[in-house]
Amino acid sequence: MTMPPEIDPETPPPGTPADVRQAALALLAGRDQATLSTLVASSAEDAAAVGGWPYPSLVLVAMDGAGRPLLLLSELALHTRNLRQDGRAALLFEDTGGLENPLTGPRLSVMGRAEPLAGEEAEAARALYLERHPSAALYADFPDFRFWRLDIAQAHLVAGFGRIHWLAGGDLKP
Amino acid sequence: MTMPPEIDPETPPPGTPADVRQAALALLAGRDQATLSTLVASSAEDAAAVGGWPYPSLVLVAMDGAGRPLLLLSELALHTRNLRQDGRAALLFEDTGGLENPLTGPRLSVMGRAEPLAGEEAEAARALYLERHPSAALYADFPDFRFWRLDIAQAHLVAGFGRIHWLAGGDLKP
Repeated sequence: MTMPPEIDPETPPPGTPADVRQAALALLAGRDQATLSTLVASSAEDAAAVGGWPYPSLVLVAMDGAGRPLLLLSELALHTRNLRQDGRAALLFEDTGGLENPLTGPRLSVMGRAEPLAGEEAEAARALYLERHPSAALYADFPDFRFWRLDIAQAHLVAGFGRIHWLAGGDLKP
Repeated sequence: MTMPPEIDPETPPPGTPADVRQAALALLAGRDQATLSTLVASSAEDAAAVGGWPYPSLVLVAMDGAGRPLLLLSELALHTRNLRQDGRAALLFEDTGGLENPLTGPRLSVMGRAEPLAGEEAEAARALYLERHPSAALYADFPDFRFWRLDIAQAHLVAGFGRIHWLAGGDLKP
């Protein structure tokens, strides 16, 4: 199998072109929702025979000032139980709605470790998140809800059909 | 941590209510695109330090007559390299576009094993897929493209805020 040059580790791109970085930042800043991918918790209490399986779910997202996605998750939700067991997570941001062929639109997968926030960090996340998603005020203070933050280690941009770029987390600081 | 009754293995639902099944089938039949979740291949040729990480990507989907999602994937794409190493996969179908609060809309995560098709199965998949996505005829015959099929083992429906149901793959046969 031949690797396309964009993702061939033997010939990594010499740097992230400005337009690639801009396309990625635009998706992070502009999308209210994303698909969260987690690993299904394999704890004995799970009846599902899908432990370790990748699991996609819908989330609302805000961004903090350092370019890290913020989530507000219920401890009762499957994705949160997954993250409690294994913090490895990813988010897909895509802007393909309304396109005749969605594969021509840009999408960004960001991968990193998710962690729950507490204290002042949770307060700061709360302010940013509720500014972006005012309706979340209805449940943000429910006792089972927590703010989480994804620290992006790496990102994968598909800028359109076959236009593929890897980015380091550091490339996505605003 | 308290489990909501819907996902408590101690008290599984006695059966899948007809309206839950209908909501799931409507998402499978009605959505042209989905988010595929795979596990990043940890082969030595990967420069990325994200082996084993969940990875979400955008795909177009068609359904076969037995209720199995069909995909058309390039061997050059990261998600395909992932599936070649580990066939565990999931797809998120969601119908939340245009809603003021996307979390009020239905979404379905289906989990199963993905496998590449060959011979008559690939031909049958090709016909169904191109009927649904005529523009894919432009690349369906490229040598690096293959048809894949997901055999759904389990599904997780979020029918709206807090309305959560597990379904067995068998519940999703048309």
